[in-house]
Amino acid sequence: MDNAQSAGSAGLADFFAAATAIVGAQWVRSEAEELEPYGWVAIPFGREVHMPAGVVSPASLEELQGVVAAANAGGVPVWPTSTGRNIGYGSSSVADPGTVVLDLRRMNRISDYDAELGTVVVEPGVTYSDLQLFLEQQGDDFWLDFPGPGPIVSPMGNTLERGHGVTPYGDHFAHSCGYEVLLSDGTLMRTGLGGVDSTGSWQSYRYGYGPTLDGIFTQSNFGIVTKMGMWLMPAPESYRTILASWPDYADIDKLTDAVRGLRLDGTIATEGVLGNSTIFLAATRSRADVYDGPGAIPLDMTIDLARQAGLGAWNYVFTLYGRPDKVASDYAECQRRLEASGAQLMDARDEQAINELTLKSFALFNWTGGGGLAWCAPVAPMRGRDMRRQFDLVREVMDRHGVDFMVGTAFGERAALNVMPLVFDREDEAWMRRVQQCYGELMDALTAAGFGIYRTSIGYMDQVAMRHGEANLEVNRRIKRALDPAGIIAPGKSGIRI
Amino acid sequence: MDNAQSAGSAGLADFFAAATAIVGAQWVRSEAEELEPYGWVAIPFGREVHMPAGVVSPASLEELQGVVAAANAGGVPVWPTSTGRNIGYGSSSVADPGTVVLDLRRMNRISDYDAELGTVVVEPGVTYSDLQLFLEQQGDDFWLDFPGPGPIVSPMGNTLERGHGVTPYGDHFAHSCGYEVLLSDGTLMRTGLGGVDSTGSWQSYRYGYGPTLDGIFTQSNFGIVTKMGMWLMPAPESYRTILASWPDYADIDKLTDAVRGLRLDGTIATEGVLGNSTIFLAATRSRADVYDGPGAIPLDMTIDLARQAGLGAWNYVFTLYGRPDKVASDYAECQRRLEASGAQLMDARDEQAINELTLKSFALFNWTGGGGLAWCAPVAPMRGRDMRRQFDLVREVMDRHGVDFMVGTAFGERAALNVMPLVFDREDEAWMRRVQQCYGELMDALTAAGFGIYRTSIGYMDQVAMRHGEANLEVNRRIKRALDPAGIIAPGKSGIRI
Repeated sequence: MDNAQSAGSAGLADFFAAATAIVGAQWVRSEAEELEPYGWVAIPFGREVHMPAGVVSPASLEELQGVVAAANAGGVPVWPTSTGRNIGYGSSSVADPGTVVLDLRRMNRISDYDAELGTVVVEPGVTYSDLQLFLEQQGDDFWLDFPGPGPIVSPMGNTLERGHGVTPYGDHFAHSCGYEVLLSDGTLMRTGLGGVDSTGSWQSYRYGYGPTLDGIFTQSNFGIVTKMGMWLMPAPESYRTILASWPDYADIDKLTDAVRGLRLDGTIATEGVLGNSTIFLAATRSRADVYDGPGAIPLDMTIDLARQAGLGAWNYVFTLYGRPDKVASDYAECQRRLEASGAQLMDARDEQAINELTLKSFALFNWTGGGGLAWCAPVAPMRGRDMRRQFDLVREVMDRHGVDFMVGTAFGERAALNVMPLVFDREDEAWMRRVQQCYGELMDALTAAGFGIYRTSIGYMDQVAMRHGEANLEVNRRIKRALDPAGIIAPGKSGIRI
Repeated sequence: MDNAQSAGSAGLADFFAAATAIVGAQWVRSEAEELEPYGWVAIPFGREVHMPAGVVSPASLEELQGVVAAANAGGVPVWPTSTGRNIGYGSSSVADPGTVVLDLRRMNRISDYDAELGTVVVEPGVTYSDLQLFLEQQGDDFWLDFPGPGPIVSPMGNTLERGHGVTPYGDHFAHSCGYEVLLSDGTLMRTGLGGVDSTGSWQSYRYGYGPTLDGIFTQSNFGIVTKMGMWLMPAPESYRTILASWPDYADIDKLTDAVRGLRLDGTIATEGVLGNSTIFLAATRSRADVYDGPGAIPLDMTIDLARQAGLGAWNYVFTLYGRPDKVASDYAECQRRLEASGAQLMDARDEQAINELTLKSFALFNWTGGGGLAWCAPVAPMRGRDMRRQFDLVREVMDRHGVDFMVGTAFGERAALNVMPLVFDREDEAWMRRVQQCYGELMDALTAAGFGIYRTSIGYMDQVAMRHGEANLEVNRRIKRALDPAGIIAPGKSGIRI
């Protein structure tokens, strides 16, 4: 426990004693071997760097309130996790040493399902799998929008990190409605219309009256969200999943402009995923199968392999939903405009797009073996030349460090989230250090080139926050001090401390 | 100036002197006759109640910074307005006595137009009319989404109040992207990705890194927004505007459920407006033409008149946009499902829906004459029974006070914003007091019945804020104290003070 900085060992011991009285001894962990699973990270840091100082697992709001009161009284920093599977961003580890994980997976109630409005309320520990089972039992009228590691992660955790999926409900934050939030001083508030006594409107309208607060509880440490309303997508009448492929790396320019047009006029209502040749290769092959040379795998080689498999340098998988005649009309329009940009189209299958849970995204780990993964996730404006500029910049840095360039892009209407997995073998210390160095340089180079970052891991939050504006960070600190004066909730999250 | 409470007359005089040195004498007003136009309100209060203590009109960010520094130093409360046409919600008047209007209409620059992404940046004083002219000059590739009083109001003002229009971009807040905000201590920040040095991404991605702050600057007094990014709708290939009418008041139940289905599955991509018989009547007739009896105009009478004009008790105007074959397909689906709910459909024309500015919404003032208008704007979940319950409740209160029941509803997917104009003659003191009383009772009765309020006027902000949860109001106060410690920006806005 010598890494406890804010509370000191005595404070921490008192806190564990208080927590034990509230949740029971089996739900408080403070011995090194018990903490091992919580220290498991895929990001390129030794496990000790972000190891939690303990874990407390309350089963209910009431228990959580007691635990938070004890933490606040003792100045013990706590790091709330929902299911703790923020893999490649820090898993269930903590940003700052001495922080105790509040593992909320036992708070896993599903409530307030509304079959007319298509809304439901979840606690932190509910997984997509839990929720899908629940909806099936209710009659299967609604679909979920999953992130990549769908079955095992939490809708709340993913939404509060502002995660994305591939259906028209892919912007998870935009489809959440109404949070219950516990502040460190015990204040329990409900955002949106949740503060109106006996309201039946909490999940129907997001903004509430006065300032709209939901956004400040995402990628944030201002409070602990204990309930979240979700909007559910009505099961579509029909759908068609398409894979469009462009042969050459340089096609990124014209493909981006073509897709932007289809996104802006609503022909394609979803973000879909644009993957490069290497990330497609990694879904089915291991790196050692195809390359044993030095440095990063040559992009030309993966493009050749992709072409042999009927794919291209760029491969865009997206799904059209709706009445059959509309899907047919949208398909014809996509075909006309994407083919004009040099694409070949074929029909495809995407479990994530059609309400089928899959663990396929974990195939990435087979690329190198060794369980190393760090997501580099810059934003690019949806202009061909900006995408090209960003990818060229990233490739230069990655090549220098011998890191393979893979990217899966979520195409918004005006911005692309270019989510790039840096995959490596954690057992290979030198490789891990190369990735660590590469990631830091990427953050610096991207923000220096004017690009923003969508999301980052606990290892780089300070660096990324500082590059998004000193004034912004200071405003966040002022709000932090106002809502969590003792600074006990997730210190370091998004670079914010009191 | 004897209503100055925070600053005192001496402080106020010093402030006006400092402001004069910054903006020039002709842009500082403090004499009663000069303030008269700023005290003009349509809401049911005497003009003296919310009369500003002065007006300062800076022409640039630099001037505004100087004026705010002087206000902060002297503890002088200031109330920023964009064009000051928040008619029926308080116009350019202020919530608390002693507050000086910061009239920002001279800050009216349009910048950073991006013809690829469909984005533009506006200052507070830009009107929809200015912006439309600008876009016409750029080639007319994009349409604006106007609120009712489109030509003369400001996109920024309307967006920050969370106003709505009738195209697929009708949720104005959701289509804004990136704010520049001046805090009372002189901090100038840019939300979203605006804090990244030399970024070209500010208008392309809303959320930024870390907590998303935009929402806290809407319906708010935490800072002064000096620039706002806007997303523009690509001009659609074709469109069709439809008027669906239902004959009876009781039809609200089944029509709401039918429209919800079409909204949820995306067949109708816009909110449109559902108007009752009385509000449709008020668009073309004056009250005295049709009714001279006591109390509120009988709803049955306006329904009869509507039917004679080929309309119904409920009339829903909405527009379908897109490629002609899709519009035809959506039309057929609307026809099938709305007719099944008892509607008659006809083609219609709606200037607001097709990028034509109109002042038609001001026809409401002709209903009674005398320039009295207060918007009562509760939210209802999009369930037939909730709409019916809310309207029954509102009618009971309005009937008791002799106020005519008019409503124009913006149909979201899961919530309806039921915007009800209480129209009256301000010259008739007794009528004005009846409306004042009625409005207060409506706010109480609606929130007591569990309904939230979308937006209210400066006359009722405290009352409404208190009914949306004590914890919420206290959290807002804590953020207020963090970002505006002297409490000089718009005290009383949304019930928030330090």
